[in-house]
Amino acid sequence: MSESIGFIGLGNMGQPMAINVLKAGYNMKVYNRDQRKAESITEAGARSGARPAEVVERGGIVITMLSNDEALKAVTLGHDGLLNYLGPGGVHISMSTVSPNLAREMHELHEKEGCSYVAAPVFGRPEAAESQQLWIVEAGNTAAKERIRPILEAIGQGIFDFGEDPAHANIVKISGNFLIAAAMESMGEVFALAEKSGIDRTQIFEMLTQTIFSSPIYKNYGKKIAEKNFQPVGFPMRLALKDVNLVLDSSEQVQSPMPFASQLHDRLLSGIAKGRGESDWAELTRGIADDAGIE
Amino acid sequence: MSESIGFIGLGNMGQPMAINVLKAGYNMKVYNRDQRKAESITEAGARSGARPAEVVERGGIVITMLSNDEALKAVTLGHDGLLNYLGPGGVHISMSTVSPNLAREMHELHEKEGCSYVAAPVFGRPEAAESQQLWIVEAGNTAAKERIRPILEAIGQGIFDFGEDPAHANIVKISGNFLIAAAMESMGEVFALAEKSGIDRTQIFEMLTQTIFSSPIYKNYGKKIAEKNFQPVGFPMRLALKDVNLVLDSSEQVQSPMPFASQLHDRLLSGIAKGRGESDWAELTRGIADDAGIE
Repeated sequence: MSESIGFIGLGNMGQPMAINVLKAGYNMKVYNRDQRKAESITEAGARSGARPAEVVERGGIVITMLSNDEALKAVTLGHDGLLNYLGPGGVHISMSTVSPNLAREMHELHEKEGCSYVAAPVFGRPEAAESQQLWIVEAGNTAAKERIRPILEAIGQGIFDFGEDPAHANIVKISGNFLIAAAMESMGEVFALAEKSGIDRTQIFEMLTQTIFSSPIYKNYGKKIAEKNFQPVGFPMRLALKDVNLVLDSSEQVQSPMPFASQLHDRLLSGIAKGRGESDWAELTRGIADDAGIE
Repeated sequence: MSESIGFIGLGNMGQPMAINVLKAGYNMKVYNRDQRKAESITEAGARSGARPAEVVERGGIVITMLSNDEALKAVTLGHDGLLNYLGPGGVHISMSTVSPNLAREMHELHEKEGCSYVAAPVFGRPEAAESQQLWIVEAGNTAAKERIRPILEAIGQGIFDFGEDPAHANIVKISGNFLIAAAMESMGEVFALAEKSGIDRTQIFEMLTQTIFSSPIYKNYGKKIAEKNFQPVGFPMRLALKDVNLVLDSSEQVQSPMPFASQLHDRLLSGIAKGRGESDWAELTRGIADDAGIE
């Protein structure tokens, strides 16, 4: 476990993930654009770098957990980017939810340098990241995946392998986020109908999630939506729109129309237009209430 | 358990439900428009009536399980209808998925005759009815609900009470069917995107339903949709359209827009236009494949 790991991106998700890797016994160097966010993890024993390049060892392993394509490109490419320092045998574990196209592009750029790009996006909110309960979807070079397995095991409760093309892991990830948003919209429509019909929102939520919809997504998000309690913010609406846009880009690319995704795009865009971009994405259901003339 | 029960409507769902009531030790008289469908249950010990009125005892209990509003009106109203014979103290357990408006109308008509109309629609396919695994949503007069409880317990694995207004049980039921259809559309869109992107539909189905979507609806319908295997027909698309129309009627009535429901209406209508009205409603996802130019 003496291997040294670079970790880039210490946001809501990255921070608890990095702490779990550190706890598993790895040496760690961290980088975050806003260096103050690195403080709690350096106190826990990690070292901090001033540039992405400083946390990378030649032939080593670096993890990135960033909010979008631009952020991933910014830390990976260019003179100070990690790719310039990773070198032959190195592995870049890219856990961000980014576009499948960028995953393909990154894959090729890493191959040229003799290193590997493994896409390993995760499902789960910050609480799940803290308690090592994330689900990880991985795709990339087989030998690289074997090498990084113990690290992923320190981060998540389960790993699902989708083969050698890193883009596939990203398609699965954004598809999952689309399904969550669709489940929230569906529940929001039902709870608004119930409320306006004189039925207790919470009661219909409980019946459904104790029976045919007894899954974490319906239980956890359904409770927030039924009770109209959207705190704390686990995933902001702004990023949810980014992900639905990624789904729509992919659907456009392979010519596979997704009418629910198109509708969710407008729902999220409207939420952001109403000033809810930094609110939890479950607040997309407030748009349904707005449309129905209720709170 | 010597109480005699009338049972009207021996279709895919009614037949196994009636058999479970019979097995619980009740005397039973059955009526079905097509009398041949009554044969297996009369062989099991029930008696058969030639008209709805013949299976009803004054002050007794009668169960109806029919496919739509018209069928329920046909057996309930008029000279030969059950309501003319049920009389004071009688209870009509209406388990069909009918419109909330009809439930309200029936409630008033039954009250005038001194008897009770309890709405008790169910969730579950014919296999679930056979194995006594239905979920029952009930609403109606409190004393009547107490009296019929052992009968409902012989039919389902759980009962959820939604108060005194029978229409509320029907709103909950059609909302549940809407949620199922929305989950199927959502999965269908994702699996088509996956397939066209070169990802195994079954693999993405398995990942999702082993993790964040681990509920019966996603597992059971997701498997059919991932594998494109829609046999046997548990619930025909024709009736699914009926239920989505009921949801849209309710949403219109209370002014609560439901864009996903509107979209599902067109999806189901198109399925029926393509000759799939008698196919299982999971085949609504074939419309997604059609739109994407795949099988």
